[in-house]
Amino acid sequence: MTLSWTHLASDGAARLGRLHTAHGDVETPVFMPVGTAGTVKAMTADAVRATGTKLILGNTYHLMLRPGAERVARLGGLHRMMDWPGPILTDSGGFQVFSLAGLRTLDKDGVTFRSHIDGSPHRLTPEASIDIQHKLDATITMALDECTPFPATEDEARTSMELSMRWAARCRDAFVARPGYGLFGINQGGVFLDLRARSADTLGKIGFEGYAVGGLAVGEGQATMLSILEGVVPRLPEEKPRYLMGVGTPDDIFGAVARGVDMFDCVIPTRAGRTARAYTRAGVFNLRNARFAADDRPLDPACLCPACTRHPRGYLHHLFKAEEMLGPMLLTWHNLTYYQDLMRGLRAAIVEGRFAGHATTVRAGWTAQEDA
Amino acid sequence: MTLSWTHLASDGAARLGRLHTAHGDVETPVFMPVGTAGTVKAMTADAVRATGTKLILGNTYHLMLRPGAERVARLGGLHRMMDWPGPILTDSGGFQVFSLAGLRTLDKDGVTFRSHIDGSPHRLTPEASIDIQHKLDATITMALDECTPFPATEDEARTSMELSMRWAARCRDAFVARPGYGLFGINQGGVFLDLRARSADTLGKIGFEGYAVGGLAVGEGQATMLSILEGVVPRLPEEKPRYLMGVGTPDDIFGAVARGVDMFDCVIPTRAGRTARAYTRAGVFNLRNARFAADDRPLDPACLCPACTRHPRGYLHHLFKAEEMLGPMLLTWHNLTYYQDLMRGLRAAIVEGRFAGHATTVRAGWTAQEDA
Repeated sequence: MTLSWTHLASDGAARLGRLHTAHGDVETPVFMPVGTAGTVKAMTADAVRATGTKLILGNTYHLMLRPGAERVARLGGLHRMMDWPGPILTDSGGFQVFSLAGLRTLDKDGVTFRSHIDGSPHRLTPEASIDIQHKLDATITMALDECTPFPATEDEARTSMELSMRWAARCRDAFVARPGYGLFGINQGGVFLDLRARSADTLGKIGFEGYAVGGLAVGEGQATMLSILEGVVPRLPEEKPRYLMGVGTPDDIFGAVARGVDMFDCVIPTRAGRTARAYTRAGVFNLRNARFAADDRPLDPACLCPACTRHPRGYLHHLFKAEEMLGPMLLTWHNLTYYQDLMRGLRAAIVEGRFAGHATTVRAGWTAQEDA
Repeated sequence: MTLSWTHLASDGAARLGRLHTAHGDVETPVFMPVGTAGTVKAMTADAVRATGTKLILGNTYHLMLRPGAERVARLGGLHRMMDWPGPILTDSGGFQVFSLAGLRTLDKDGVTFRSHIDGSPHRLTPEASIDIQHKLDATITMALDECTPFPATEDEARTSMELSMRWAARCRDAFVARPGYGLFGINQGGVFLDLRARSADTLGKIGFEGYAVGGLAVGEGQATMLSILEGVVPRLPEEKPRYLMGVGTPDDIFGAVARGVDMFDCVIPTRAGRTARAYTRAGVFNLRNARFAADDRPLDPACLCPACTRHPRGYLHHLFKAEEMLGPMLLTWHNLTYYQDLMRGLRAAIVEGRFAGHATTVRAGWTAQEDA
């Protein structure tokens, strides 16, 4: 049996569920930290586990270039190599080919590009992407798509979406089903709801173990993103998990969960952690700010991570001023802990039927003014 | 009662003992990882503990400049700030004033210099160094000395040593005795054994809780260093711990323990860890070397650290090639674990009267050729 999802409870459109995978079960809504090149930056696997993380994301583009899919397979697959026996979702590589790689040429069968590392030529087709993700031993494989740029005209968005849908069908054919593994399709269509709806219907007919919404959080703004989710999520198969790719801030996550999204990934908590920005129950702090230099209080008194329970704010400030690696290490740990606490809190609120009130309360706590 | 040391066993000149401090007991011979600016680089305090480390070193020069001694005191002292309730030794600041600071002016009362960070003017005197180390809450305070440069003429070495001895007496007067805290004097005299002997006698008359040998491992070579230790260590008070500053490689440590040294500190395991160099039972490996790229074996099969038990060598190679922070994190963890295992092994050998044979066996294992 392929990867499946059980719907456990609802509160309005917000859903509590459980993913059943070859590498363990995961409660949804779930947040996936990003492990770009086979590591969640600045974190040991044990530290990632300690944040409450159950499911992580790997980037096919980065891993296919270095160390290479064959090499990862030779080293036992991503799970063994990274010391992450839990489930791993990999993206298709497409998004980063379009954002990072050089000299891209798109054709109907795939995309040819040059590595941003050494300029070497590579090609991704739907079949190649599926094969690479298989070699990486991804628990959840993503279909190859073209992430429609923003802004795009309706014609551009249609052409792009239709290409992605043809590729989605080819990915379905290429995917080798294994117990507890699954393939997700990706909804596209830019900001055009009719295109999004057609894309959702096409994907549903092909049939996937889960459905992602791609091409959002690319500059359209939160209000547009949420209104597109309101239009598209109800057209996705109800009995499957829904994944909003690359999103987002805690506020984005509340908005998307309220509209029926079950899965998220984003670099925000890890990237912010490396640049001294702390997500807390009181809002976002920049720990480089001089006002923290002599502050002997914990960063977030309600947080149980090592940064908050073991050190004063002034020490975290010092670590960033001195450019010590421990600054990014501790603050990444904290931000991921904050995100996972946030997810745990909203899951509890869904099951208890108090999601809307919970979201209001949590948001009201974010009073800090970040002074960068 | 001030910090004390119990002599538990001897094997030739090698000694097993136990330091009794306000922050816990420590078996000797002991290796102290260096926590320059209030952090053992690339390591959480929990990770440092997991390596078997009991005693760490902090650098007064770095800490007095940033975050500043008053600031550290305001943040609860070095132990609380760093999450290191165990004992901490701080150096006097002198060594780094002479190696890092700008525009140094030495006079009979101290040294005036400019910060290498922002050019701000500072002054260290024997009394100031002791006061700063008190504010840092150092378990073991080091007397301020001038680290005699190498090479130096006998006249230069004598003048420098005599200055250090006058400062040592002033440090003794300035030090505020507290239960379980202690002050160590530092032997100087360059490579001149008669000067080293006079320095040892002077320090012994002043009386300290421990005696360091300074000004070695500065270019004189291992053979000279060990012959100086043979001359000077027997002149140091037998009932007190002896500390060889800034040393060294595993081979240096065997040589010095065989000559009666009880304490060591060195940046080698941490610095090497950040530059892909691994100290193992088979010798030193450079993990950037291409021969490790597809190597699915553990780095050191006998080591219990996360780098060795959780990941293949090829993954560690990948992390360094991709410049991921986890590479330095895991390899620092490994190198410190290796050093602490080495110390544990030699302590067991001393108590069992087989130190010389043990050293021969361990050294014979170092067959790896490091190809950088």
